[in-house]
Amino acid sequence: MRHGGAYPEDVSSASPGAAGVDPSVPAGVVELVGLAAYTELAEFGLLAARSVDAPTLAARQALADGAARALTRQHALLALVTDGSADAAAVVVAPFDGAFVDFDMRTRTDVWAEGLLKGVVGHGVAQDFCRTLAVGVQGHVGTSLRTVLERPAPGREAEAAAGADAEAVRLLDEVAAADEVLASRLALWGRRVVGEALSLVTTFVDARPHLTALAGDSARTLGVDADPRAWLVSRLTAEHTRRMDRLRLAA
Amino acid sequence: MRHGGAYPEDVSSASPGAAGVDPSVPAGVVELVGLAAYTELAEFGLLAARSVDAPTLAARQALADGAARALTRQHALLALVTDGSADAAAVVVAPFDGAFVDFDMRTRTDVWAEGLLKGVVGHGVAQDFCRTLAVGVQGHVGTSLRTVLERPAPGREAEAAAGADAEAVRLLDEVAAADEVLASRLALWGRRVVGEALSLVTTFVDARPHLTALAGDSARTLGVDADPRAWLVSRLTAEHTRRMDRLRLAA
Repeated sequence: MRHGGAYPEDVSSASPGAAGVDPSVPAGVVELVGLAAYTELAEFGLLAARSVDAPTLAARQALADGAARALTRQHALLALVTDGSADAAAVVVAPFDGAFVDFDMRTRTDVWAEGLLKGVVGHGVAQDFCRTLAVGVQGHVGTSLRTVLERPAPGREAEAAAGADAEAVRLLDEVAAADEVLASRLALWGRRVVGEALSLVTTFVDARPHLTALAGDSARTLGVDADPRAWLVSRLTAEHTRRMDRLRLAA
Repeated sequence: MRHGGAYPEDVSSASPGAAGVDPSVPAGVVELVGLAAYTELAEFGLLAARSVDAPTLAARQALADGAARALTRQHALLALVTDGSADAAAVVVAPFDGAFVDFDMRTRTDVWAEGLLKGVVGHGVAQDFCRTLAVGVQGHVGTSLRTVLERPAPGREAEAAAGADAEAVRLLDEVAAADEVLASRLALWGRRVVGEALSLVTTFVDARPHLTALAGDSARTLGVDADPRAWLVSRLTAEHTRRMDRLRLAA
């Protein structure tokens, strides 16, 4: 059931009746899918760039495979609300074109491992954000969206539609285990990246009424009685702490 | 039938009895698959890098999709001679690690369209080389290898296992059609890149007896009575001319 119509039922404001976009999907959901799909394209770029300058052939291959999986997931997301055509995909993703430029500028680094961690943390926060907003999406699209965005089960990270980060996480773990100084540096870097990522997320929520409404829906679905914005940040921060623990880096 | 045992039947010299590599496949064929697989990884990197700095979202998406397809083809190639494990793949590809560094240094460019053309031409020559050598490979592996390396039929370039270049070719065509000066510059650049690529190919053939033998097998299979090295270069040059014609750039 819906929760008091917290997000409007109109078709996507970015694409009123755009060819190839499912007109039965609410605009807020199209927007969320667009953000999630853009996030995967950005993740492709981050992993691919770290593949190109990877120090070993094994890392190069592993990160290329991860980047390809990010695109597989992107196409799975877009198929939820479009007919799968490139034109329809472009309409859904276009509103987020350039959305990460500021984040990217503020977290520039020439250190390979820092670039890798930036991808894992930035993409991790963006995915947790999308997953959290998907909680409140009703009906068939909501179920499918949550399935596609699901965190892969342990040991199944390398499957086609699974997360793209598995190899990056493994490589970072190796790097941190081998070099204590670099590990401390990465822990510090992780705090900087997550700060920028959380600030970007709140900017998104503030600037996009559909996403604000979805955050409210999610909070209500989970029985949370708090300001959705504050709740969202604390939830994403907690997920980030778990992520850094998995990397054995202090959050 | 085989042609006078022009390549030895021993298992790969790079990996005598390596776990996960099919011991029934001749060493020369494992080497050819390794080169073809490394070529696809390099193509992934070239397309992905041009995706990251693409001028439009559409180009960024298209080149990312092409890069992902290069990896799909890479995995299809590796599956022909390995059990599909990452370790076995690493053994097959490792002998070619760094093989394109010189080529890459000699064809550096900051012009986006030149970088794109470098990928199309460099990868095109490398693929034509692998296709030509595959002509002489006997038996079941030969048939499968030729199928995977096959040039996609017109209009079917965008399919999962098809060539990765389709989008790059389309984007270059758009760029060249819109800017006559850039088109002339690209035609010149194409000649430089193909020169470097052909010089690399002859170095490969000279330095790797298995590949020399395969070139001879291919020439004999096609009834060519000429020095395999000279024949190979003239064949690759002809393919390059056709490729530049398709791009409407003068070779």
